[in-house]
Amino acid sequence: MGVQQKKTIELNRLSATRAAQLLARRELSAEQLLRACFARIEQREGAVRAWAALDKELALTRARELDRASTQGVLHGLPIGVKDIFATSDLPTRYGSPIYENHQPSMDAAVVALCREAGAVVAGKTVTTEFATFQPGPTRNPHNQAYSPGGSSSGSAAAVADHMVPLALGTQTAGSIIRPAAYCGVVGYKPSFGRSQRAGLKTIADSLDTIGGFARSVDDVALLASVLMRDRELRELDYDAKPRIGMYRTSQWRHTDHATRDAYAQAASVLSRAGAQVDEVELPPVLCSLVQVHADIMGFEMAQSLTFERTRHRAGLSSSLQALLDAGSQITAEEHRANLVRVEEGRQRAHSWFEQYDVVLAPSASGEAPFFDQGTGDPLFCRVWTLFGAPCVHLPFYTGPQGLPVGLQVVGRSGDDRRTLAIARWLLNVLRPGEGD
Amino acid sequence: MGVQQKKTIELNRLSATRAAQLLARRELSAEQLLRACFARIEQREGAVRAWAALDKELALTRARELDRASTQGVLHGLPIGVKDIFATSDLPTRYGSPIYENHQPSMDAAVVALCREAGAVVAGKTVTTEFATFQPGPTRNPHNQAYSPGGSSSGSAAAVADHMVPLALGTQTAGSIIRPAAYCGVVGYKPSFGRSQRAGLKTIADSLDTIGGFARSVDDVALLASVLMRDRELRELDYDAKPRIGMYRTSQWRHTDHATRDAYAQAASVLSRAGAQVDEVELPPVLCSLVQVHADIMGFEMAQSLTFERTRHRAGLSSSLQALLDAGSQITAEEHRANLVRVEEGRQRAHSWFEQYDVVLAPSASGEAPFFDQGTGDPLFCRVWTLFGAPCVHLPFYTGPQGLPVGLQVVGRSGDDRRTLAIARWLLNVLRPGEGD
Repeated sequence: MGVQQKKTIELNRLSATRAAQLLARRELSAEQLLRACFARIEQREGAVRAWAALDKELALTRARELDRASTQGVLHGLPIGVKDIFATSDLPTRYGSPIYENHQPSMDAAVVALCREAGAVVAGKTVTTEFATFQPGPTRNPHNQAYSPGGSSSGSAAAVADHMVPLALGTQTAGSIIRPAAYCGVVGYKPSFGRSQRAGLKTIADSLDTIGGFARSVDDVALLASVLMRDRELRELDYDAKPRIGMYRTSQWRHTDHATRDAYAQAASVLSRAGAQVDEVELPPVLCSLVQVHADIMGFEMAQSLTFERTRHRAGLSSSLQALLDAGSQITAEEHRANLVRVEEGRQRAHSWFEQYDVVLAPSASGEAPFFDQGTGDPLFCRVWTLFGAPCVHLPFYTGPQGLPVGLQVVGRSGDDRRTLAIARWLLNVLRPGEGD
Repeated sequence: MGVQQKKTIELNRLSATRAAQLLARRELSAEQLLRACFARIEQREGAVRAWAALDKELALTRARELDRASTQGVLHGLPIGVKDIFATSDLPTRYGSPIYENHQPSMDAAVVALCREAGAVVAGKTVTTEFATFQPGPTRNPHNQAYSPGGSSSGSAAAVADHMVPLALGTQTAGSIIRPAAYCGVVGYKPSFGRSQRAGLKTIADSLDTIGGFARSVDDVALLASVLMRDRELRELDYDAKPRIGMYRTSQWRHTDHATRDAYAQAASVLSRAGAQVDEVELPPVLCSLVQVHADIMGFEMAQSLTFERTRHRAGLSSSLQALLDAGSQITAEEHRANLVRVEEGRQRAHSWFEQYDVVLAPSASGEAPFFDQGTGDPLFCRVWTLFGAPCVHLPFYTGPQGLPVGLQVVGRSGDDRRTLAIARWLLNVLRPGEGD
């Protein structure tokens, strides 16, 4: 009964995996855990502002139900944050936009319902940028409130980093999971494209939008993903080989700061010493040109996906989003088709290129988080991987000169999610030893 | 001013293309056209039951606005039917399910908003089967009410066939556009996968759901599609070569009735005489085995997409859908991944196979529509094409022994939508000469 003797406030720091074990053994109650998370939220939310909607009584009612019930699934009793771009039947869903100030859906998004089916307690909705694009919400970086948490999954990354919840849902269309994970110093996982059902997600770019999540360890994020993708193999991350790692500076290396370069050099050296095969690699140059192709595909699709808002509620859109949609509207279907052909060629080249390496290790962002009033940062280092539908895992293991987190992303071959997560876990254990409960 | 002298009741039979010309020249008003369509609806809806929601006053208000405004776009003043699987901000959206009896979304689906931006008047919502799957709605085949209109886009196909509206939106996950088009005797077009944004569509299988439409001619359906896909090239369907046609009985030929076999033989002979290169072809046998793979991928994805309904409103689901979702829940992620690999291989083989032919001509359905009380028919002849993401156009040109429509579908290479539509137009002009206004 050791855990029950701990102060309530510390339960919120438990990993999801550990808490799930204690909950399953009934050594911890869902209500206790939720109360600890809400105590943290109440203490810190004024500074961090991670939440777009909270309903403590609703969550407590659900937690007590779970405490009375038999174990529902692998998330039984775990509090989660849900990015406010997913529909929830019992919490408002505003998409980070004043247009939807009073919007209450009648249903849960598919992944929210899957998490609930597996026993999760939705603690609340987390802040998203406007329609998961670039206009920031109110969320601050939990490590230093002068800085941005990144976007678009700002609240989910911040809430997990600040120990408000162990798990949170996010989405990535450009760099909306990996970048906030990097700025907030948590593990972010963007699965291969197409592995979760997006029903009830406010989609903005059908060929890019990908559902993923945040946690404080690879095991935890894989636990969540195993529910989102209904794939129990994602909970089996044993890996006892020595990975072949392609260290890749990317064509955007000139944009990296010293902290990222130091983290990169440290990773190369530490991983080598741990027995990994570490090679500096280059991708075929044609693939680098796809950064702009990603932006154009996203622009073309966004201008259509947000047609209702663009035509009927234009004044409710930020001026920067208006400009993005106007630019996207200028892209012709002919240009778009040519872009899709380039992507398909690129995907196939990347796919065969990956046969030489188990994973690529590359920057997640240019460096530490920008100041809050400078926006949520640039998805530059994520666009091509998202375009290829590759699984990406951000590994937080370094601290920059401002005292903010820095790390790198592991990129796997599209479809190789289990192996990518297993290697990510191996790498993080080497890069950040001794963490865990 | 010839058109204005016609009886109001006849305007509803105008093609979309012809009506759009008259509307643009202000020789026809949107209000006149809409009133003609509503006169037809009022006359026939009791028998056909194509509509899930109608609001004549709302539509008339919009038509009068358009009559006062400058021309908005290529659909200016054209009434359309919207399958009740798309969200509409001003009409209820029930997805063919009692669970959503009182559901009123706050937004228009992206494609509805695009049609409205182009000047379309939404006449109402058309009947869908339950969540666009198999449980029939009330719609009857307009040619003979003892028969099914097909599904899942039942109301859209029936409304267009019965001259209630010139254009209607549909979706296809298995055979939900091509099959009802075949049974109702209209042109149905399922575009290449991924060419329209699905925001606001109630998706059931993210890797398959495809937005398309219905009309009474290829020109008309291409006009609609040019808005859905924001691709003006789809309105340029001139084709003056002689197409190379692969006539393909498919591995399901044993399920075809005499009417389909007669239509097939007639097409081969008529098209040959018109100068087309007509070869009987076989696809690699491995591709035929993908019929079951399609069903399994759809089942796996549906069981997730409809998790909220499955877990929270199970009693509101038909027993047949409950059984489908239960079966889909039994498919493991490992099986699903293996299926995706087979599809990818199949797609690539099909893609290179298509280099020998401009299009494939194949059955759309086993034959004439089944009796109403026998369900909406089987998507057997559509599953593999949907799985490959290929553009498909149903061509109605034959009448079976029950007096019901029969035809064949044109299948193009994925991405070749313009050429597929252009050849479909050429073929229909040969197979059904002298139609049009």
